Amino acid sequence: MHIGFIGLGNMGAPMARNLLKAGHRLSVCDLSAAAVAALAETGASACDSPAAVARSEAELIITMLPAAAHVKAVYLGEGGLLDQVRPGLLLIDSSTIDPLSAREVAAAARAHGNPMLDAPVSGGTAGAAAGSLTFMVGGAAEDFERARPILAAMGKNIVHCGDAGNGQVAKVANNLLLGISMIGAAEAMSLGVALGMDARVLAGVINSSSGRCWSSDTYNPFPGVLDDVPAARGYRGGFRSDLMLKDLGLASEAARQVGQPVFLGALAQQLYQVFVAQGHEALDFSAIIHLYNKDNHP
Amino acid sequence: MHIGFIGLGNMGAPMARNLLKAGHRLSVCDLSAAAVAALAETGASACDSPAAVARSEAELIITMLPAAAHVKAVYLGEGGLLDQVRPGLLLIDSSTIDPLSAREVAAAARAHGNPMLDAPVSGGTAGAAAGSLTFMVGGAAEDFERARPILAAMGKNIVHCGDAGNGQVAKVANNLLLGISMIGAAEAMSLGVALGMDARVLAGVINSSSGRCWSSDTYNPFPGVLDDVPAARGYRGGFRSDLMLKDLGLASEAARQVGQPVFLGALAQQLYQVFVAQGHEALDFSAIIHLYNKDNHP
Amino acid sequence: MHIGFIGLGNMGAPMARNLLKAGHRLSVCDLSAAAVAALAETGASACDSPAAVARSEAELIITMLPAAAHVKAVYLGEGGLLDQVRPGLLLIDSSTIDPLSAREVAAAARAHGNPMLDAPVSGGTAGAAAGSLTFMVGGAAEDFERARPILAAMGKNIVHCGDAGNGQVAKVANNLLLGISMIGAAEAMSLGVALGMDARVLAGVINSSSGRCWSSDTYNPFPGVLDDVPAARGYRGGFRSDLMLKDLGLASEAARQVGQPVFLGALAQQLYQVFVAQGHEALDFSAIIHLYNKDNHP
Amino acid sequence: MHIGFIGLGNMGAPMARNLLKAGHRLSVCDLSAAAVAALAETGASACDSPAAVARSEAELIITMLPAAAHVKAVYLGEGGLLDQVRPGLLLIDSSTIDPLSAREVAAAARAHGNPMLDAPVSGGTAGAAAGSLTFMVGGAAEDFERARPILAAMGKNIVHCGDAGNGQVAKVANNLLLGISMIGAAEAMSLGVALGMDARVLAGVINSSSGRCWSSDTYNPFPGVLDDVPAARGYRGGFRSDLMLKDLGLASEAARQVGQPVFLGALAQQLYQVFVAQGHEALDFSAIIHLYNKDNHP
Repeated sequence: MHIGFIGLGNMGAPMARNLLKAGHRLSVCDLSAAAVAALAETGASACDSPAAVARSEAELIITMLPAAAHVKAVYLGEGGLLDQVRPGLLLIDSSTIDPLSAREVAAAARAHGNPMLDAPVSGGTAGAAAGSLTFMVGGAAEDFERARPILAAMGKNIVHCGDAGNGQVAKVANNLLLGISMIGAAEAMSLGVALGMDARVLAGVINSSSGRCWSSDTYNPFPGVLDDVPAARGYRGGFRSDLMLKDLGLASEAARQVGQPVFLGALAQQLYQVFVAQGHEALDFSAIIHLYNKDNHP
Repeated sequence: MHIGFIGLGNMGAPMARNLLKAGHRLSVCDLSAAAVAALAETGASACDSPAAVARSEAELIITMLPAAAHVKAVYLGEGGLLDQVRPGLLLIDSSTIDPLSAREVAAAARAHGNPMLDAPVSGGTAGAAAGSLTFMVGGAAEDFERARPILAAMGKNIVHCGDAGNGQVAKVANNLLLGISMIGAAEAMSLGVALGMDARVLAGVINSSSGRCWSSDTYNPFPGVLDDVPAARGYRGGFRSDLMLKDLGLASEAARQVGQPVFLGALAQQLYQVFVAQGHEALDFSAIIHLYNKDNHP
Repeated sequence: MHIGFIGLGNMGAPMARNLLKAGHRLSVCDLSAAAVAALAETGASACDSPAAVARSEAELIITMLPAAAHVKAVYLGEGGLLDQVRPGLLLIDSSTIDPLSAREVAAAARAHGNPMLDAPVSGGTAGAAAGSLTFMVGGAAEDFERARPILAAMGKNIVHCGDAGNGQVAKVANNLLLGISMIGAAEAMSLGVALGMDARVLAGVINSSSGRCWSSDTYNPFPGVLDDVPAARGYRGGFRSDLMLKDLGLASEAARQVGQPVFLGALAQQLYQVFVAQGHEALDFSAIIHLYNKDNHP
Repeated sequence: MHIGFIGLGNMGAPMARNLLKAGHRLSVCDLSAAAVAALAETGASACDSPAAVARSEAELIITMLPAAAHVKAVYLGEGGLLDQVRPGLLLIDSSTIDPLSAREVAAAARAHGNPMLDAPVSGGTAGAAAGSLTFMVGGAAEDFERARPILAAMGKNIVHCGDAGNGQVAKVANNLLLGISMIGAAEAMSLGVALGMDARVLAGVINSSSGRCWSSDTYNPFPGVLDDVPAARGYRGGFRSDLMLKDLGLASEAARQVGQPVFLGALAQQLYQVFVAQGHEALDFSAIIHLYNKDNHP
């Protein structure tokens, strides 16, 4: 297919490259000319604006942008996508934004005659490069089915989560629980070791008991428990702490909009906030365990 | 074997019965004469005090008591177990108490010539009745091996966690993480549903993503997601909220003793405290989700 | 003076009336025709839009709107105030919004040649009616001096807080501390009484000790401690809980924007969130003490 | 009077010295022979045990000990005060312990025929040296009146708080609110300054508004706002952070015992816990503001 791709950052660029590898033709756009040029070298057609992407022969457009403000500007702004794109063309936004904004943009797209899916991802830059992302998709079932083979070039786990906005809902709810779990795992591992237990034995007990969770059995934050996780390599790579902070902010803001309390989530957000304020924003989010050791620095 | 069993409450009575079923001879004791009589009917020998149990021909003694104060009184008090028991006899305390108290009593036992294990359990009254408890055991390896076949009459998962006290450490760390996870799952499920998602679809996404945890995939607190969990039957049965509150109190107190912060654990403890104060102490701990619904009552 | 007044809600209407009482001529506007008519009956000139207010002979314009979105729409929207108002005319926004939005609008006004002050208030509807509000004002000193006599018709405490936006900063910081203090006072009073102390004696000790604060010595949340506060009349009147929730949301969002942690503030926000979700949004914010009594409802 | 004084630490020694200055005769005891010797040089009679103090001609005995365990040992232990002291002699415990322990010891004293007061203090080592302490006293009114002139040699503010244990209740409730207020003041000052406001102007606004509290108007944690407070001298002196942590621990434990939630208090305790774990235990408790600055270290 001829696919338009807007947003070639840390996630968008490898995602676009996987689409090229799968044999699709790409028309790409990004604020960074260098990012566009890099994709052009691998065969994509360079466009200088979202409007240009809309006017290209792309049959489907994917956007991967940093925040709701960018998504609204690209889709709704003057000369934006909805201004220029022909009705019927499927729009897929893989940015991570709040569900209410996603629904607002999807409703505008629908009014313009364009089906739209929200399809935020998880799996980080590693998953983007490896084509193993998880896509959590919101929108109509038939549009989900149209998109599935395209998304499959970039990801392994493509899940339909319900109507428009529910992809964002699923992601924000999962990442809310993930942030709480990771801090909980850090807290419990640190307490157990401080009380005299061997970290690996403790993790083994937890992982075969009711405390079992991904943060403990697959991504344990305590050094020496698992190999090949960020805790084993100085917390480099992985899923940046400032991105977890962003997701917890989306969760607490979405909760505020619908009047839901998020006690542990709000505290988790503040813990990641202080950790990022200390300068550790680039470390993997499992590095949060450093709030729990007496030296308090990675 | 001839086994002494002190403490025949909601947990101790079914545990003792399983020892009888396995063919062991029991000498039992409890403050409640009725509890002692009930066990005597099934073949145990009644004793009127811990000292009497010590003087019986029991070759191994198990205690199952409500709190550290009871454990210290039974073992260390005047005329208590250590006063009366012959050296060499193995002592197993399956009460859930703080690790420092467990180590204090074990050291006193050791000084008296008695090996001692802390072997707190998880699995609740259902696990006690079914003989499917998990035992988290602290103490010397050779004593663990001696105890293992006895514990296997009462449980399925017998784990050696390290030296004296580490059984309590493992349990308190696991239950700290469990309390945090359960509230996190309640928070994320409630938020996702409030934002418009179907509860089962959301749980499915979480359980195949990084938010996966026992509280979500095996004991989900949102009604209608899983069958045969307390959420499916009005939160009756299971693991009482006041027992989770007790465990979180042990965790925060142990943390205080060793100077470890427990940010999410302390807040989780307060959430269970307010829930219990509202009169819901007997409901399963997954009922905590009711703090997150607009009606705020089960 | 001839003053334009846009926004005649629970706060704006009594504020506008006090300007009329002080002898000023008013041109007023509001989405509610009834609100405009009510002011017109007392002598104000009715306008049908902010643009019409701008085109009137008003020499100074005051806005009192619910949120940043409204302020941006009224000032920056097409046909909005800045489109129509003549350069040099002083603009005063008394809405409570986040400081960054206030600075954005003030910068746009300045670029248009209009000095602008942010002048959010405290004192509630009672203070608005009584003309006893506190104004926390941000903007240039000479503009503050020009505005002071006008504000003095509506308030008793007119404070210059620094440059543009600092009025909002002062209000959000004060109300962050107020929310934390009120919950802290509720927590301490409830604990002391639960431990057996007489509430009045306890308040007396606190108020002469280091725990002394406005929430304890002027607005104590425990019934029977002070007369003539909401706690003495079923928590009616006063400062609504949903308005405190709004202010705590502004504080946590401003904190997020500048990377500051707000641990207690974030938790205070969640406590007011659950209280409002229970249906108590109209009760005075000191009613939060009901989270601390065993009946858990006002 | 001839007064017995047991416990000559950082608080007890200067308190005892003030009693000597007021002309009383002292019989003193402490685990530290050096502490006893130092008091003996200024005229006190040295005793080698609490029992010896009881057997002296002291007409009233004051204790100043670190924790409940010490108080119980000194009063209730074998050969302890209650073993040896003659009935009718007034006992005053100025240690800071939990109210339930204070009531337990007072009940034992009463059963022995000795009136007893709990009279914990605030004002720190500076207040002890200056004789300007606040005493929060629990016990019978006539015993309070008998004690008042004695306490007046050591303090300026002598408050009767109700029956036995209520002195401890008043102190723990006040210090719970103080810990919350100080962190709240640190949070609000740090946020306001990060948002661009001058610290002194902000403090001025808060102190004339509803955020007003002792922590802001008398002991502001932000450097440069007040002179002659710890924030003005590197947070040296004052009221140590580990003592505030101890008091918050007493508050949360007392709350746990009576089933009261303490949401902000529990989080405040964890914040002081992490601050102490970082090695800042000796700094004044207002140094907690360092959790809120980007450098995160005093």
